[in-house]
Parts: sequence; structure tokens; C-alpha cells
Amino acid sequence: MSDEKLPTRSENFSEWYNQIVLKSELADYAPVRGCMVIRPYGWTLWENIQAALDRRFKDTGHVNAAFPLLIPMSFLEKEKAHVEGFSPELAVVTIGGGETLEEPLIVRPTSETIIGYMYSKWVKSWRDLPILINQWGNVVRWEMRTKLFLRTLEFYWQEGHTAHSSEQEAREETLRMLDVYADFAINEAAVPVIKGVKSETEKFAGAVMSTTIEAMMGDTRALQSGTSHFLGQNFAKAFNIQYSDQKNELQHAWTTSWGLSTRFIGAIIMTHGDDQGLILPPRLAPIQVVIVPIFKSAADKSAVLDVTERVAQDLKSASIRLKVDYREEVNPGFKYNDWEMRGVPLRIEIGPKDVEKKSVVLARRDKPGKEGKSFVSQDILSATVIEMLATIQTSMLERATAFRDSHIHDPKDFAELAEVVQNGWALSWWCEKKECESKVKDETKASTRCFPLDQNSGEGKCIVCGQPAKRKVYFARSY
Amino acid sequence: MSDEKLPTRSENFSEWYNQIVLKSELADYAPVRGCMVIRPYGWTLWENIQAALDRRFKDTGHVNAAFPLLIPMSFLEKEKAHVEGFSPELAVVTIGGGETLEEPLIVRPTSETIIGYMYSKWVKSWRDLPILINQWGNVVRWEMRTKLFLRTLEFYWQEGHTAHSSEQEAREETLRMLDVYADFAINEAAVPVIKGVKSETEKFAGAVMSTTIEAMMGDTRALQSGTSHFLGQNFAKAFNIQYSDQKNELQHAWTTSWGLSTRFIGAIIMTHGDDQGLILPPRLAPIQVVIVPIFKSAADKSAVLDVTERVAQDLKSASIRLKVDYREEVNPGFKYNDWEMRGVPLRIEIGPKDVEKKSVVLARRDKPGKEGKSFVSQDILSATVIEMLATIQTSMLERATAFRDSHIHDPKDFAELAEVVQNGWALSWWCEKKECESKVKDETKASTRCFPLDQNSGEGKCIVCGQPAKRKVYFARSY
Repeated sequence: MSDEKLPTRSENFSEWYNQIVLKSELADYAPVRGCMVIRPYGWTLWENIQAALDRRFKDTGHVNAAFPLLIPMSFLEKEKAHVEGFSPELAVVTIGGGETLEEPLIVRPTSETIIGYMYSKWVKSWRDLPILINQWGNVVRWEMRTKLFLRTLEFYWQEGHTAHSSEQEAREETLRMLDVYADFAINEAAVPVIKGVKSETEKFAGAVMSTTIEAMMGDTRALQSGTSHFLGQNFAKAFNIQYSDQKNELQHAWTTSWGLSTRFIGAIIMTHGDDQGLILPPRLAPIQVVIVPIFKSAADKSAVLDVTERVAQDLKSASIRLKVDYREEVNPGFKYNDWEMRGVPLRIEIGPKDVEKKSVVLARRDKPGKEGKSFVSQDILSATVIEMLATIQTSMLERATAFRDSHIHDPKDFAELAEVVQNGWALSWWCEKKECESKVKDETKASTRCFPLDQNSGEGKCIVCGQPAKRKVYFARSY
Repeated sequence: MSDEKLPTRSENFSEWYNQIVLKSELADYAPVRGCMVIRPYGWTLWENIQAALDRRFKDTGHVNAAFPLLIPMSFLEKEKAHVEGFSPELAVVTIGGGETLEEPLIVRPTSETIIGYMYSKWVKSWRDLPILINQWGNVVRWEMRTKLFLRTLEFYWQEGHTAHSSEQEAREETLRMLDVYADFAINEAAVPVIKGVKSETEKFAGAVMSTTIEAMMGDTRALQSGTSHFLGQNFAKAFNIQYSDQKNELQHAWTTSWGLSTRFIGAIIMTHGDDQGLILPPRLAPIQVVIVPIFKSAADKSAVLDVTERVAQDLKSASIRLKVDYREEVNPGFKYNDWEMRGVPLRIEIGPKDVEKKSVVLARRDKPGKEGKSFVSQDILSATVIEMLATIQTSMLERATAFRDSHIHDPKDFAELAEVVQNGWALSWWCEKKECESKVKDETKASTRCFPLDQNSGEGKCIVCGQPAKRKVYFARSY
């Protein structure tokens, strides 16, 4: 950990974020502009995210596969909106094995095209549908303004690609996977996301409809944290994904795609972190509990380490992800700061007095100072720890939800909208015309985030132009 | 599954292999030359391989991380042998975001260079060592003659990269990971590999010493199935991985790297497969047991499916990876062939007679015909199945070991060596001169595979030139 002081969140949120990522050793800058190295602590967090999502994908009938990294340039051109959206961002391989390639290959920015091509080979009859495949992998998009986890040239994600025999089934799949993402975000990451539909301007290049989970970060900016797209027959027509239906007539399939990336790690950092560093939700934290043994004399050391070993064994048997900090070259205060920076949800302190009293000190990461400290008997420790981790998880979600709700506004007019989006989100009627969306963006830097799914049908007046509007939309500045 | 007939192994082993991979839906050809799509059945097999290896990596103190896909061309040039070995095989990105790049980027063929660069940033003191990091990912090598799983432009693997403060520790790590690979191959995949050291000609570009696990395929050719390299200080010097030792003096670190790839799936196919298709080891098989319900009348159907459901529930509760084949558009004989092609270790048949007798039929994939069939009471089924899967696993290893041992020869002279390597391996004294190695290759197509670790010290005469030799080496034709 470097000694440079962490800026507070209110001083400089962006720099606070960058420093947190580096100091907690989640990630580091790579030697290629805009690329990152995800360090073991960050990758273990990603592995826990992967496990939580993968379990949900498999429970909803999906299987994993792997499609190639390199895609012929001509594939992208088969879907008009898709190529327009992605061509400015491509990394292109022009040389292979020392020779200039006849057709350049792109490093996949997303895989609808190559997967569409393969599905057209595999699908013949209605019996071959649905195909419910997910892929865990890396993609490359040549971003100009990059930020660790949030926007990097290469990032890691999963991309699900499904093909169905009916529009309704594909639309249901789109929303099913949005629900999976929301369930994961809320119940595993304690990130209270809002489910909604993207505007025409903001939708995925090639989609009929894009849905999203949007999260509010600690500076009130919105982060698109996962998306699920209904692609209609756009890619099925571009790649001839056709099947014989039960009447033996040839039909185009209906497809979806959905993705969640290492960007989500950014969501966790900026939802929960405080001026001391990361705060990780217990269900995803690489280390749930750190034990710091405290001693000065050799006699104390032996007694304290005996208890430490025993306690560690107990907690490990209870499947708690545990680290004991045995370092002797640094003092306990340094260790506290170090593990607070890394966001470990619960710290256990064991000193000579604790040995005597057959107790330990528990210190919650989410409640600094005395409020978060308690003394617990060594006998009932693992049950207490499990309960406390669950309490921390709940409490983190409650705090983030309260923060979000207190920063969602219902402005009465455009002037008030312009004001509230400087420190929050606006939920307002919008007529769905692009001019009004652009006006908000140009004058306030806020974009439309989503039409929340959870809204009553009704009618109001557009917050921008006053014309009739059928749906409310969230306006917010975003990452 | 296509209807084209599978060639037998003796007719055409190579085409038998290609057809098996396609028909069992392990993988398919991608639209880019030499690339493959790993289909869900193949990817699940890879996931099981990953889990078995990853557990062993973590048990030996390693953690996972992710380093960038794209590497500056100049990095490769810092280690002379490394760049010479890899430059003919590179895929090069020359365009990014529509602009020609100032410095071309290579798509990683392996990551010693970029990881060496990062380690040089992270390592300062002896306290920072060892670094024990593994990465699961994809790499690209521009191969000219490709074959599904065995040699593809893009493949999936893990690459471990460690840095140590002493030569001895790095050498120990090299052999520890070779042991991990051998333990995995033998005990999870039932592939009886031989551990050994590569010759100077065959070692990794940039290594001081390369070790390997070599497996004998069903046509007696050798397959290098995993490698572990002692890199000395070659990469530490090229990338300045330096640390202050306990006397505060600056030292270069010692590094290792080790990898096992999707090529291993080829080893499983060619070690165990027969003329009916794949035979998968139970410990890695995506589906360990398939149940085929058999009925004609509606009354039978209801009774049979009732029992099937109950049996399936029992086996799932026992954590057996299970598939019930409910298809009605194909008959049981078709299903038997289909699951035999896919190598499912154990089939359960349930028909009206079995319902009556409260029994089921078990059919082992590794013993075709009556010999592999048994009738088992429904009451003790899950225990019987678990036991039988273990028996199949053991029996597969025994059969592969016996096959291998019966094809290892001790030729008395070069003429006999030339003969035996046409249908087996030779274990012979070799003087370690390149001329003798080349002569064998030129005249017999056999290369040196490895000096087996398991050999007594001694001295003999080189099988080629008759000069004194200190070690025996395996000569074999290889993939």
C-alpha cells in the first residue's frame, strides 16, 4: 500500500476512486494505454461475482460455451446499426504469421455476429430452439477516455446469446435475464439497482429494445450496470438463423443478448466505499473476516497465537473466507487501516486481555469507530460471525437504498430538473422526442437512464416541452 | 448428430478424431481459418477440468489474476530466445479506433513478457516474494496446420507465472506444478502421463529448463499435455524484476511459468475413445449418467416415467451429474448410440419390466455389450452408481496404462528404434547431441519427448551414435 493520502470523496470523488482501486490492489494500469491488470484481490472479487451469476444462469437453463476472439470484418457489416455503433471502437488485426491478411479480423467488441453465424449452422428445426448459451470472456473496445473498471480498452464480461422460435419467448427471456441481473445486484452486491428500458438513443446498436439495471453511485451519478437486449429478428435476418416450424415452414428466429462486465466492480466500489477505502458486501468479499492478533511480549504472543489458530480453524470450518494477518513488521494500527482500505467486512482483534476473558473484539467495516465494535465470547464465535456478516449485508443494502431514494427528485419544471441533476436523479415525464432528450443533455449533462419498469400507466406533460408524455424516465449524469 | 458413418480408429485415426469432435458436439469449426467454437458439451468438460486444476492451484498457494490480451511488440523483443520462438506465430493489431497505431500490439501468444513487466513494478523487497499467480484465458498463435483442440489459432488455457527469491525455490516450484499436472491427468482424466524434462531443442523459447507431461494416444503417438518451465533469471533480467534482499542488496528474481490448455481435451479423446465414439472419465464427464426410459403404451409410459423421475431425484440428491433423455421422436437404440458417441460413462435403462421387478439396467460405456450390463435394485441405486463410476474411472486408467506400457520398447539398435516408433515409443540412451536427435527425426519422424524423471542414474551408449550417454529419453512420433 502506498503512503500517499487518499483524497476524501467530497474533495475529489474521481481521484478517490482511482486511488482506492490502486491502493486496495484491485487493479493496476497496464503498459498499453487504457488497459488494466486485474490483480488477485480484484480477480477473486470477479470470481465471486462470476459464481453468483453463473449459478443463476444455470438455474434458468443456460449453458456456457466459447466463441472465437477474432471476427471477420465483413461479419460486422451485415447488421447496419451494429456496424455503425461499433466501427469507431474496433481493434483490427491486419497481420497474422508474418503475412498481411486478405481480410482483416477484428478483436470482438461483442459477439452477436459470430454467434449469429454459428447459430445459423446449428439451427435447422424448431426442435433445435431455444438455444440458451452464455460466454465468459474478454472483449476489446477502443475507448478514448478510460477509467479503471468503468471503461477500459479490454474488459471481462459474460455475454448471453439466445435464439427462440417466437417473439414473445424472446421478449420474456430479455426480461428474465434483467431480473437475474437485478436479483444478483441487490441480493449479492447490495447495490439497489433500478430496472428499466433504454431510450431509442441509448439502446444497443442493433437492438429492438434494450433494458438496463441502473445504479446510483456515491456522487449520485448513474452507472449502467448490466443490460439485456431484445434483438428482434435483426441478427437472425443478417445471419440467416432460420428454422422449419411445426408446419414445416421456414421462419427466422428471434434473438436476445445480455451482458454484465467487470464494470460492475466499479459499481460496488462507488456504491459502498467511504473515505477510509473500500467496503465490500460480505456475500462477494474475497476475504470476509480478517483476524489481527495483538501482542508485545513473547509469552503473550504464544497465548494469543494459540487462540488465533483455534478461532481461525473454527471459522474456516464454517466456510467463512478468512485471512489471519500474521505480519510482524507492521503494527496493529497499520493493519486496521490496511484492511479497512481493502474493505474487509469484519475484523477480529485478539489480544492478551481477550485471551484472558475468552472473548474477541469484532469491528464492522461498515460502522467505523465504537458503534461498530462488540465483544463476543470465543465459544459462540462462528455463529455470531455468520449472523453479523448477514447483518452487514442487509445494512449495506439499506444504506445504499436510503441514499438513492433521498437523491431521486420529482422536479416541477425544466429549471428545477437542471438543478436537481447536479446532485441526484430526476424522475420525470418525457415525450420521448430526441430533441427534448438532447436539450437536457446539452444544458445539464444529464442523459436519459431508463424508463423504469416499475411505473403506473398514465399520462403527463413532458418536463422539457410540455407536450403529452406516456412514461416517466430517469434523467441523470452518468459514467 | 449427423448420419455420416464414423470411420474406425484403425481405418483412419485422424478422421475418426475429427468426426468424434464434431458429432459429439464438443466443438465446431469457426469461420476464421484455424479457429474453433467450443460448444456447450465441450465447454462443460473444460469447466470441469478447470475446477479440478484450480482447486489444486489454490491448495498449493496460488491465486488468479488477469493480464492484458494486447502486448506492445517491443516487449517481446526484450528476451532474445523468446522473440525468435514466437515471432513467426504472431497476430498483430495495427489499427485501433480507426487510426494506425504508433506501435503495433500483438495478441498475446503467452504472457511472460507483460507479466514480467508488471512484476517489476510490484516487486521491491524480498517480502514481496514469492508471487504465485495463475491466469485463465485465451491466447493466439498463428499456426499453419490446425486441428480441433490440438492446434488452433486461438486456444484456452491457464498460464501460471511465479517469481522467487532463490533458484532452488523456483526449481522446486517448476517440479511442484509438474506434479500437480500429473496428479490431475492421472487421477481426474485417467490419462497415465509420464513426467520428464524436454531436450534443449524442444524446450520453451526463453526457458532454462522445460518439463512436460507426455501422454500416449490411441494411435501410439505422443501428446505433450502440459508443461512447466524454469525460466532462470532470463525474464527477470529482461524486465528488471529486482528486489532488495535481507542484506538490502539488489537481486534479480527467479521465475517459472506453466501451462495446460484445451489441447488436453484432445488427450482425453484420443486416450479413451473407441469406434463408437468418446469415452469420458467419470470425474470430468459433463454428464456422468444418462437415463433412457423405455415404453410403448401410454400405461407403460406413465409407470416408467414415474420410476424415472424418482430415480433421477435420488441420483441428483447424491450429486451425480445426470441427464434424462425424454425425447419421443427417436427410439431407444438411437439414444444409446447418441450417448455412446458422447461418451457418457454410465447409462440407465428403465422399461416396463424394470418397473415390475423394481430394478434398472446399468450399461457401462467402457465395456460394450453384455459384459458391461448389470441389473440393479432401485433401492440401492445411488450407492451402486457412485461405486460403479469409481470402478469405471479406475478401469479406464488401468486400460490406458496397460496400452501405454505394452507400446513402450527398448530397441537394441537404431534400426529397431526406427521400427518400434512406427507403432510405439522407444526409451533409449541418448548422448544429448543435436545431430543424433535430428537424425532420428529425419529418418523416423520421431522426436525426443522427454527424459523421464523416473529413471535411475547410470550410463549407456547412445542408440544413434554409440557414444556415452547419461540419461534415457523417450523417442516418439507426436502431435
